[in-house]
Amino acid sequence: MSTGVVRVGLLGLGTVGGGVIKTIRSQQEKLASRLGKRIEIVKALVRDSEKERAVHLDRSVLTTDFEDVLKSDVDIVVEVMGGVEPTYDYVRALIEKGCHVVTANKELLAKRGTELVDLANRHQVHLAYEASVAGGIPILGVLRQFLRTNDISGVRGILNGTTNFILTKMEQEQLSYQEVLKQAQELGYAEADPRSDVEGFDAMYKLYILAQLVYGESLPLAEVNRKGIADLTAGQIRIAGELGYRIKLIAQAEQTGEGIRLSVEPTMLPLSHPLAQIQDAFNAVQLSGNIVGDLLFTGRGAGELPTASAVVEDLAYLLTQPFTPHPVWKEREGGAETTQETEAKSFCYVEGTGPAATPDRVLHFLRLAGVEVHKLKVQFDLGGVLRAGLITTGFTDEHSDLLRSDFGLQVRCFPLLGSVE
Amino acid sequence: MSTGVVRVGLLGLGTVGGGVIKTIRSQQEKLASRLGKRIEIVKALVRDSEKERAVHLDRSVLTTDFEDVLKSDVDIVVEVMGGVEPTYDYVRALIEKGCHVVTANKELLAKRGTELVDLANRHQVHLAYEASVAGGIPILGVLRQFLRTNDISGVRGILNGTTNFILTKMEQEQLSYQEVLKQAQELGYAEADPRSDVEGFDAMYKLYILAQLVYGESLPLAEVNRKGIADLTAGQIRIAGELGYRIKLIAQAEQTGEGIRLSVEPTMLPLSHPLAQIQDAFNAVQLSGNIVGDLLFTGRGAGELPTASAVVEDLAYLLTQPFTPHPVWKEREGGAETTQETEAKSFCYVEGTGPAATPDRVLHFLRLAGVEVHKLKVQFDLGGVLRAGLITTGFTDEHSDLLRSDFGLQVRCFPLLGSVE
Repeated sequence: MSTGVVRVGLLGLGTVGGGVIKTIRSQQEKLASRLGKRIEIVKALVRDSEKERAVHLDRSVLTTDFEDVLKSDVDIVVEVMGGVEPTYDYVRALIEKGCHVVTANKELLAKRGTELVDLANRHQVHLAYEASVAGGIPILGVLRQFLRTNDISGVRGILNGTTNFILTKMEQEQLSYQEVLKQAQELGYAEADPRSDVEGFDAMYKLYILAQLVYGESLPLAEVNRKGIADLTAGQIRIAGELGYRIKLIAQAEQTGEGIRLSVEPTMLPLSHPLAQIQDAFNAVQLSGNIVGDLLFTGRGAGELPTASAVVEDLAYLLTQPFTPHPVWKEREGGAETTQETEAKSFCYVEGTGPAATPDRVLHFLRLAGVEVHKLKVQFDLGGVLRAGLITTGFTDEHSDLLRSDFGLQVRCFPLLGSVE
Repeated sequence: MSTGVVRVGLLGLGTVGGGVIKTIRSQQEKLASRLGKRIEIVKALVRDSEKERAVHLDRSVLTTDFEDVLKSDVDIVVEVMGGVEPTYDYVRALIEKGCHVVTANKELLAKRGTELVDLANRHQVHLAYEASVAGGIPILGVLRQFLRTNDISGVRGILNGTTNFILTKMEQEQLSYQEVLKQAQELGYAEADPRSDVEGFDAMYKLYILAQLVYGESLPLAEVNRKGIADLTAGQIRIAGELGYRIKLIAQAEQTGEGIRLSVEPTMLPLSHPLAQIQDAFNAVQLSGNIVGDLLFTGRGAGELPTASAVVEDLAYLLTQPFTPHPVWKEREGGAETTQETEAKSFCYVEGTGPAATPDRVLHFLRLAGVEVHKLKVQFDLGGVLRAGLITTGFTDEHSDLLRSDFGLQVRCFPLLGSVE
């Protein structure tokens, strides 16, 4: 590193990239006194160097050609361009040149992290990624700290702000998924192609990274039980609420007897559950240590400045720390099966108009089938549509199939978390 | 430090002391591999060496004479005996012998911290105290981290688990303060002499420490605006609830134009406020950074193991870090005055039986006095006692006095936080 100046390269100059530059500029005195050096952005890779931007960078700093970054002798690269291709190749090439990496890219880490960690170790460079999970909440640092004195069996949370915003609005304004998605896109809370968020990919990538920290290994992404929110209806959310529950997209990593289990799925929480209280675009992570007990961390999970805060903190931190090898990342195939525990409670939502679909008959069928019904909420609308929410024990896919075939009902079941009853 | 072994002295072997020993024992493999050394408790100062204890320590380790600790050549002392006298003298003597200190003692730090920090710096030993604030929540570490990249204007929270437990039970079970206090004492949540908790001293000490971190200075304790919960009534809590609010003992540090302002007082929060959701003996700390935004940390603030987790983490951390001087602690007299902002909303609870005390007359008087009443909840009981809760703007002590003298009413006002309306 040249004396007096840290040469930083930036891959990507979107929302987070702009936030990084603003943060470095607004905090430059603090950073300089801490690092004993001035931070200089020497090259920034962009898609379009002519585009108007909220932050000004000298024209000579911008480039559309990655080779320019590679040639500019940067000490550190901040990767905020996202995606895996060509990002992986760029990051790889920079590591091979001995460049430290700070990244906010959860997809890259979840898909190629095992290789990048190994490569960084071989080239003795830092790979830092606090910004990749839960934005400004310093959850990776806190987890690393607790793991030194605690055994942590699991971690769960709301890791995607977009879906939490959509679910909050669907409940509060009794709107359909499509209506709220449109609002969210207009507000900039959801992307034009919302699939990564609403189908649970984004939360899954973050969960994968958390598992690497907590367990020293993770599962291949194909083995994560992932379900999104795109098929949730206002009716399901309303009936859940009337039963005293709220539906959240919960990401959860658990250690079971058969191995680790990772899931991202819409989950019913009693309204009194701490995660049920997390509304709008906020994120929250709950962890349980054998010594420290339960902890909950809440904050903005995304957005320009919260994410930039984590990026700049990583950048400053690694500049003041000697290199130590990063713990190796591993993937273990054959995680715990998502078995249907017959003891577990679940929330089943049924809807239909068939003549057989009366509450009495459905309850009679379930009783004979050995399903316990703890709570029931029934609604008929003017068109004679039955909508019912049931809190059950012992409900399986087989019961779903029979309710469909014999009663003409549509069925959607959700796992139920931390029932306080 | 002798090779292979870290010699630890323990001052105090109560709840937290026992938790520290249990934690060191249960995590000894982790600790040994991290430190490259074995931790050995070589001496423990106790009041009664004959007492039966939940954790076994060799009889030869226990002593009732501090001089035995001083002579045993310990590398580190863990101070969990509490109090200021004789604790300060003991800690001072150990620092002067070059011994590192880990303490959970907020009172000692708030009353003698400026001297201890200075002394530790002069003798080049670590002084670590994560366990002194919010138990297992690593709030000091997190604050230090954020302060490196953020300007933090303020911090607020629920810093005392005992009072939060009492307030939760008073609300949930509609019991009086005295009844709940008795329950809490039986459950071990409150001490036989509860004053430090219920009068807000404990929360004030913790707030003092937070201010030293956030602002690099704090106020003399006498300048902290401190009010306890011992005079709260079930009636106040019930009417607050009916108005959509909950009363919490909120500790708050703010930067104002005139300087910093520290307060610990019962405060009205809208039910939707994140701190209103913190129930039972939990603690929570909310901080606001100019870059990271709002963050909330929740966890058990006290108890054997959460506090022990923080103590052992401090212990392990300082054994792996070279000494660097601790930022000096300062006290600045003349903090911001607690002025009654006439623009601020407050919750006023009035109670009385006088013939003049009718809601109409009270409202008429307030209107003439220029006090705006946003919400009103009135109850009469069978004995003709008027109880009313008012959300007001512009209510001052002067109005209180007039309601007392002219209407025969008792008046209690509470500040109102983060009104969402």
